[in-house]
Amino acid sequence: MNLKFIQGGVCAPIGFLASGVHCGIRKNKEKKDLALIYSQQRATAAAVYTQNLVKGAPIAVTKRNISDGYAQAVICNSGNANTCNLDGEAKAQQMCDIASAQLGIKNEDIIVASTGVIGQVLPIEPIANAAGILKDSISITGNDDAAEAIMTTDTYSKQVAVEFNLDGRICRIGGMAKGSGMIHPDMATMLCFITSDVSIENTALKKVLKEVVDDTFNMVSIDGDTSTNDMVAVLCNSMAQNEEITVESKNYAVFKEALFAVLEKLSKLIAADGEGATRLIECRVKGAACVETAKKVAKSVICSSLLKAAVFGADANWGRVLCAIGYSKCDIDVNKIDVNFESEAGMVEVCKGGSGVDFSEEKAKTVLLCDEIIINVNLNNGNCCAVAWGCDLTYDYVKINGDYRT
Amino acid sequence: MNLKFIQGGVCAPIGFLASGVHCGIRKNKEKKDLALIYSQQRATAAAVYTQNLVKGAPIAVTKRNISDGYAQAVICNSGNANTCNLDGEAKAQQMCDIASAQLGIKNEDIIVASTGVIGQVLPIEPIANAAGILKDSISITGNDDAAEAIMTTDTYSKQVAVEFNLDGRICRIGGMAKGSGMIHPDMATMLCFITSDVSIENTALKKVLKEVVDDTFNMVSIDGDTSTNDMVAVLCNSMAQNEEITVESKNYAVFKEALFAVLEKLSKLIAADGEGATRLIECRVKGAACVETAKKVAKSVICSSLLKAAVFGADANWGRVLCAIGYSKCDIDVNKIDVNFESEAGMVEVCKGGSGVDFSEEKAKTVLLCDEIIINVNLNNGNCCAVAWGCDLTYDYVKINGDYRT
Repeated sequence: MNLKFIQGGVCAPIGFLASGVHCGIRKNKEKKDLALIYSQQRATAAAVYTQNLVKGAPIAVTKRNISDGYAQAVICNSGNANTCNLDGEAKAQQMCDIASAQLGIKNEDIIVASTGVIGQVLPIEPIANAAGILKDSISITGNDDAAEAIMTTDTYSKQVAVEFNLDGRICRIGGMAKGSGMIHPDMATMLCFITSDVSIENTALKKVLKEVVDDTFNMVSIDGDTSTNDMVAVLCNSMAQNEEITVESKNYAVFKEALFAVLEKLSKLIAADGEGATRLIECRVKGAACVETAKKVAKSVICSSLLKAAVFGADANWGRVLCAIGYSKCDIDVNKIDVNFESEAGMVEVCKGGSGVDFSEEKAKTVLLCDEIIINVNLNNGNCCAVAWGCDLTYDYVKINGDYRT
Repeated sequence: MNLKFIQGGVCAPIGFLASGVHCGIRKNKEKKDLALIYSQQRATAAAVYTQNLVKGAPIAVTKRNISDGYAQAVICNSGNANTCNLDGEAKAQQMCDIASAQLGIKNEDIIVASTGVIGQVLPIEPIANAAGILKDSISITGNDDAAEAIMTTDTYSKQVAVEFNLDGRICRIGGMAKGSGMIHPDMATMLCFITSDVSIENTALKKVLKEVVDDTFNMVSIDGDTSTNDMVAVLCNSMAQNEEITVESKNYAVFKEALFAVLEKLSKLIAADGEGATRLIECRVKGAACVETAKKVAKSVICSSLLKAAVFGADANWGRVLCAIGYSKCDIDVNKIDVNFESEAGMVEVCKGGSGVDFSEEKAKTVLLCDEIIINVNLNNGNCCAVAWGCDLTYDYVKINGDYRT
């Protein structure tokens, strides 16, 4: 298809403005902590959320606001998750009221999100006080500031944008995300905001979002911990003036492919920037009897602490791959499994038919010392495949999380 | 009941001898790598094994040998797991043949086990060559050498023994175990060998072993990785001359309590000596609607990488406890959950009814700086409870596993 990556993030589609400021939830004045995304037209909206029973208060408010299928803005703070607080929902509602007053839109058209420490009361004053400047600074180049403002322990901001053609109309999808720790999405994931100028019917948007998230964000794990505040929200404001996409229209697949490209890229950016990570691990499973098996095996491998530590040490300890496949609770024949390690430095076969094969440790070291490691698993038992993304387990993960709150 | 911990390990019960030597599977001559346990009488035997689909070859051989409910000796090497090798079963069988020839017992009466690196061919020569000295050195004080010889990255050997009274007969149970990494037992766990001089009928022994393992080893996790070679085997040689225990006899409960004491102690020793660990974490869950929920919640908490890293940093980040409870997939009311942290330095309440309470960070630090941390969770939703054990996540876990094979 005609799909190309373009510069920018959530402001790449027509009619979207954004901003990000330091409001004071964080002590460090260098770190922005409040973001705003605004669509000039009311947009079709959908979102998926964490499956953790302990849910951030903003999730309840966003769910309510988005229940009619529309939204026009996103307000999000970092530094405090507004979760496990008695006044959580009231505070999340106040954030919507503040944004609504500034933007002159209904407070039911606002998506609200928070990320940071759980269980500390969210101070609303910094947000109220910064609302004016937050609104005044929205612009079509504000996506960088917004993407920065939602970061927690992320070491870089994550933005992607694509452009594609729908029946002669140029359309765009832009996105920004934050990840880093407590990343093991279950249906939804971390925070991710997607904008698009396509026209798409609400049912179709909900369906395509769920489908694409299942194959992208839900295949990422940093540490096996499913966060309380995960959310992926998408706004489509119709300003590209394409014919409205429905579940039945042929352009559903085109939009899905474009959305997949954006979410896959953001997923890899999140995995590569996992807390303390030095390497991206991509596990590609093929030859599975069903997709479910392929997904479970791929996730089991990238979730193994032992495998993650081995990748950090560039140690070709493939037995840990087999071990992780073995406890994935799938019906597989271990005597058929082939495994190899791959990177830009080459490929090294380590296991054939469930048993080890001779390989050059030197070559393996070279392969594993690269920034992006691919673990190829062939179950030789069918035609289904899946990909999952994770990162290595390092000293810095321990350091970052040994004293996160101070 | 009349139960007391006594000195010793697998040689504490009457009629058991053991030894441990360096045979050469490991390069380091200081490190023993071959263990033997021998019962002077043929013993009732039972075992539980890893549920990992990728299973060590010794497990297949042991299962076969023990299928008649009897065994008389255990041979176990460390330094090589004899797993994912084409000739694995043949080699495991050879280990039995070697032990059988030395001890003059049937090779079907031998339990064989291996632990160490997966996927490297097990050299049989070192074992064959050392068999004579291994057999010649068995004695009633050989338990220390045997316990040492099965260690991998363990920093100390793990032995426990108890003495108790069955209708006037003094009986004993002794045990040794190795743990450290790849510890997330699923039905069975790591390697653990239990001896006893009680007389117990085979069905009763199988039943009691499964029951006790479910509440002890299966509630331990070091890193979420279920090993391929886990095994808990128990031999009871009747030499205490008690009346044979059956499932129906009142002494079943007495034996179960004694076995529980041994396995609980070994579980805690394994958790406290998890790879790189500096602290033992015990999560006690009460107020659950059913035992299954209590167990799932307790395990979810001790498995959280984020919580484990926070405990390493003595950081009272209780939000991570709530988060882990939330993704435990249990039907619970998060607004009823109380949490406190406890240790020999005192207790500090951190969460009441699902929301944070004010607490002294200084006091919390003092509590969390101890070697053994208890996380008390009350779900306030029933009368069931469970306990799980784990350890903190440290720099040394990463270090040990970043380059395990060299």
